[in-house]
Amino acid sequence: MKKIGVVLSGAGVYDGAELHEAVLTLLAIDRAGATAVCMAPNIAQHHVMNHLSGQEEPGETRNVLVESARIARGDIQDLATVDAGSLDALVFPGGIGAVKNLCDFAIHGGDCKVDPDVEKLIQAVARAGKPIGAACIAPALIARVFKGEKQVELTIGNDPGTAEALTKFGARHTDCAVEDIVIDRQNKLVTTPAYMLAQRISEASTGIEKMIQAVIEMA
Amino acid sequence: MKKIGVVLSGAGVYDGAELHEAVLTLLAIDRAGATAVCMAPNIAQHHVMNHLSGQEEPGETRNVLVESARIARGDIQDLATVDAGSLDALVFPGGIGAVKNLCDFAIHGGDCKVDPDVEKLIQAVARAGKPIGAACIAPALIARVFKGEKQVELTIGNDPGTAEALTKFGARHTDCAVEDIVIDRQNKLVTTPAYMLAQRISEASTGIEKMIQAVIEMA
Repeated sequence: MKKIGVVLSGAGVYDGAELHEAVLTLLAIDRAGATAVCMAPNIAQHHVMNHLSGQEEPGETRNVLVESARIARGDIQDLATVDAGSLDALVFPGGIGAVKNLCDFAIHGGDCKVDPDVEKLIQAVARAGKPIGAACIAPALIARVFKGEKQVELTIGNDPGTAEALTKFGARHTDCAVEDIVIDRQNKLVTTPAYMLAQRISEASTGIEKMIQAVIEMA
Repeated sequence: MKKIGVVLSGAGVYDGAELHEAVLTLLAIDRAGATAVCMAPNIAQHHVMNHLSGQEEPGETRNVLVESARIARGDIQDLATVDAGSLDALVFPGGIGAVKNLCDFAIHGGDCKVDPDVEKLIQAVARAGKPIGAACIAPALIARVFKGEKQVELTIGNDPGTAEALTKFGARHTDCAVEDIVIDRQNKLVTTPAYMLAQRISEASTGIEKMIQAVIEMA
């Protein structure tokens, strides 16, 4: 059974992993006959957002690994302890956590930094020739990691500003419909817009299923 | 388009709504061409569980509506303000929140109390002849609401202790496989074991899809 690492970044679209994308990723992996290995960095969230009011909760702190454990039903590993050799592929659901917790692209754009353990794992998986998948805004993290190293082809849907920012990292951006995927066969990278474009959960689901299928085929 | 109320009870299997069941419920409703109307009571959670350690966080408090908003991407209503007349059906994903926040069956068993607004909504939906669906442990809440009023047929899988407790509420319990459902046509109630039995997310998904299809057919 192929082992697919799923990197979570909290539990909620506005400060962590987008919950629909994360759960649909786990479903697609299971339905494809592979095993999901959930992981997250053991770090503080950038912030805590009240998802009802849309406002930040200034006094509150939450931990990315602890909150991600809600999605994994407790079956989750500290990303820093995960050996790339134990995985056949690595996938990233979206949500603001991907660009505020795993890296800070949503805050610093072109000058963003990546969590060192996340960067190390992505690099190790890529060097081993194993595929990577990313949904929604998570391709921004991938583009940043490969900046100045190789030109990856990817999509975040069709938002011109975000696409241009990824181009500045050296990536090639391809517009993509919500239920479709962009496959970079040379770099074994599969991306899908998910909630960058989705108006309905079934649209996100279709794209994520295709992404997981393509990742597992290359694994 | 049929409107299916989805009652959430927080965001995490050990203190709120089970996230897989909640998201898969939303997916099944969308795929069936209906609209999900997310709601939750605006009350404090019974407690906050650290889903990594499995331990309670004694100093922490979270609000059921605010945490449920993470699942609904912010598009959620205070359950107390929802008019049963605006809905075609009502469904309950499982998770400990269903039996610690919506009612306290997990704490007081046969002597449990139901949140008054939750009870009022269930009664109003049932009186209007509209169907109700419940997954995992949530059928315990339904059994409690109809105690002494009518005999509903339902399932929580095959756990003898829980099944017996529901029988004491006057319900008829039918053992059920994880990917199947129990339909009480007279009372328009559909139940499925989900994570009371599921070892894999795809098993929970199959049962929940069937539950939603049956609920929508009766709506």
